[in-house]
Amino acid sequence: MVNPVTELTNAELTALKVELEAEYSEYASRNLALNMARGKPAGKLLDHNTDVLKTLDNPFAEDGTDARNYGILEGLPEMRRFFGEVLNLDPERIIVGGNSSLTLMYDSIARLMMFGTCGNPAWRTLPKLKFLCPSPGYDRHFAITQEFGIEMIAVPMTENGPDMDVVEELAANDEAVKGIWCVPLYSNPQGVCYSDETVARLGKMKTAAKDFKIFWDNAYGVHHIYEEVKLADIFAACEAGGNPDRAYYFFSTSKITFPGAGVAMMAASFAERKEILKRMGIQTIGSDKLNQLRTLRTLKDAPTLKKHMAELADILRPKFDIVLNTLESELSEGKYASWITPRGGYFVSLDTLDGCAKKTLELAKNAGVTMTGAGATFPYKNDPRDRNIRIAPTYPTDEELQTAMKLFCVCVKLAAVKKLCGEF
Amino acid sequence: MVNPVTELTNAELTALKVELEAEYSEYASRNLALNMARGKPAGKLLDHNTDVLKTLDNPFAEDGTDARNYGILEGLPEMRRFFGEVLNLDPERIIVGGNSSLTLMYDSIARLMMFGTCGNPAWRTLPKLKFLCPSPGYDRHFAITQEFGIEMIAVPMTENGPDMDVVEELAANDEAVKGIWCVPLYSNPQGVCYSDETVARLGKMKTAAKDFKIFWDNAYGVHHIYEEVKLADIFAACEAGGNPDRAYYFFSTSKITFPGAGVAMMAASFAERKEILKRMGIQTIGSDKLNQLRTLRTLKDAPTLKKHMAELADILRPKFDIVLNTLESELSEGKYASWITPRGGYFVSLDTLDGCAKKTLELAKNAGVTMTGAGATFPYKNDPRDRNIRIAPTYPTDEELQTAMKLFCVCVKLAAVKKLCGEF
Repeated sequence: MVNPVTELTNAELTALKVELEAEYSEYASRNLALNMARGKPAGKLLDHNTDVLKTLDNPFAEDGTDARNYGILEGLPEMRRFFGEVLNLDPERIIVGGNSSLTLMYDSIARLMMFGTCGNPAWRTLPKLKFLCPSPGYDRHFAITQEFGIEMIAVPMTENGPDMDVVEELAANDEAVKGIWCVPLYSNPQGVCYSDETVARLGKMKTAAKDFKIFWDNAYGVHHIYEEVKLADIFAACEAGGNPDRAYYFFSTSKITFPGAGVAMMAASFAERKEILKRMGIQTIGSDKLNQLRTLRTLKDAPTLKKHMAELADILRPKFDIVLNTLESELSEGKYASWITPRGGYFVSLDTLDGCAKKTLELAKNAGVTMTGAGATFPYKNDPRDRNIRIAPTYPTDEELQTAMKLFCVCVKLAAVKKLCGEF
Repeated sequence: MVNPVTELTNAELTALKVELEAEYSEYASRNLALNMARGKPAGKLLDHNTDVLKTLDNPFAEDGTDARNYGILEGLPEMRRFFGEVLNLDPERIIVGGNSSLTLMYDSIARLMMFGTCGNPAWRTLPKLKFLCPSPGYDRHFAITQEFGIEMIAVPMTENGPDMDVVEELAANDEAVKGIWCVPLYSNPQGVCYSDETVARLGKMKTAAKDFKIFWDNAYGVHHIYEEVKLADIFAACEAGGNPDRAYYFFSTSKITFPGAGVAMMAASFAERKEILKRMGIQTIGSDKLNQLRTLRTLKDAPTLKKHMAELADILRPKFDIVLNTLESELSEGKYASWITPRGGYFVSLDTLDGCAKKTLELAKNAGVTMTGAGATFPYKNDPRDRNIRIAPTYPTDEELQTAMKLFCVCVKLAAVKKLCGEF
């Protein structure tokens, strides 16, 4: 039985530091060059999608539309039907986009800023704008909010999603609070799945702003790894709460087929969708329908997609096992860090001792392993306790990951010991 | 020798009307259903690009980048090099977009509105915004300007581009005038090519607004049909005039490969590009690089593209011949209309007698031929003389086009005669 590191004597800490520094030096001498900064799929995952690359023999949609030509702003009917089937959404809520759901989110914020929706004033005309940012969260969401000058309010996460008491309090009492970012299934980075109660409360809560928007980024909606968690229907929750226009739903095949060439979509209430399409029709004549056909003819239908995702999970699971087993064996007994075991998604999120995240990542980087920057998972890159680290295990090979995780754990421990020794 | 219709006596007009009405009735009885409203390529043109649909055997870029994965915001180096070679642009000016240059234009206006550029204030913070709109021009440009609440000022076109005396006067004396829309080669709809002098004057003219922008939509930059017209270098003109950041350049392969699945690009000064990329990086991780590879491996290089465009021109030329020959044989002697013979591009623009465009198109539509709406080629859809009509001959088959043009000429004549008879 090892004592928690925080309970060690000074002499024990000093001895441990010498030991860890030796271990660290050994890794540093190997000239590693591993990048785990982003949630990029490994080549092995991409190789599972060769059909998307094959000849598109028939460039016509099922209703005879020539997918090579202009038109069909909302996306091909069969593509919308596919997304509807997979996500249990009415296809009439869906708009198919280009290769990036991030763009659909950015453009949605941009439209709200410039024009507003449903008769409400354009956000740019209001004196102050705020957004609720469950944290740790996704850095690219925060970057969009910051870009548009919207103040970000960090909201703590619980194992059931954002702390709804905090969310309700902030939304109800401040009309400057205009929305919330949500990754409701296998959240980035913690892998938290929103409970049915959380979804219901988001749909029905009182908001001071009449045009409060839930940005529902279901990026990992079919990315089950250990277990398939069911997500409650956000549109049903909003309707039940008397707020039918509250949610914008986003999804893409970026991590199903290809990150650079997937098909993105958004869904909204019928009233919102009508307004969005009208504005979107000024911005584009339509997204790439050939890629819709390519993607659809590979993924086919919900059962085929399910099988495909199970195959991808078989490649991802060993990577997550490496991460979780290494964390457990290296950091658990000494209580160097805490983490949640995700059931799916793309990340593992770890909390070091307070004040140790930056140092840990600096040590890792100096030994050749680049990870997501410290603070990235918080608004303004400001992790108030400097402890959260996002581990992105999907890109390296299993062998690289094994090495990187061992080194990483040495860094977590060494940073903790240095901190406790008062070195920084 | 036929007299001009405007010089006919009342009796002659009445007799002619009876004759034309009979001709018109004959066409109306055929139950035609032809749509010539948009500049869509015919299936025969699209069938020339089957290689783009073929298997992408190697999804890696020449530097080894996996084009399936995330990244490369500015586009693959070889794609930028290709556009540079084709358009005589420094690839370091170029950003590759998705499938729509219209989106790149809209997004550029949106960024100017929200953020401004080069240290100048965001346009949304200014009391008044105006844009110069050479007219007749492209309705989708006008729609973007209108969407953002920018006042449009119609500027007359000459055979050398917009009337530069008018442009210079307006730009120099009103700091609310923030930019100009230009389709510099085979303009939409007239097929006008900007002269070297026009380009030079655009680059060097004094503008009251420090951040005046030329939106240089070179949509038909390689779409020569009868003759290859050379376009002067707008960036060189701006630099020579001491206004290096003035031009945004747009282009796409939409009418080279596929309208729905081409590759778009924009180019700008080095300073502007840097700023645009920084903001664009919040909106997307990168455009579809697989489609860049598909497109590039089909089009290959400037000589191959030139050959490809010559083949497309061989399909387009008979269509333009049908339009121009029919106009000449039917409308010339009676001076029912005037038009410019384009040397390339996608359209023929025709001016009826004053006040006859709407009636002409109404007659055509009632007989089963839908054309671009009257007024569409002017800001706010307001053609002050109600005379301009855009003919889009690229979509129908040659046979359909022949019928449509004959009917159309009957409509032009009948509208003129009805007008002169005082019927409307």
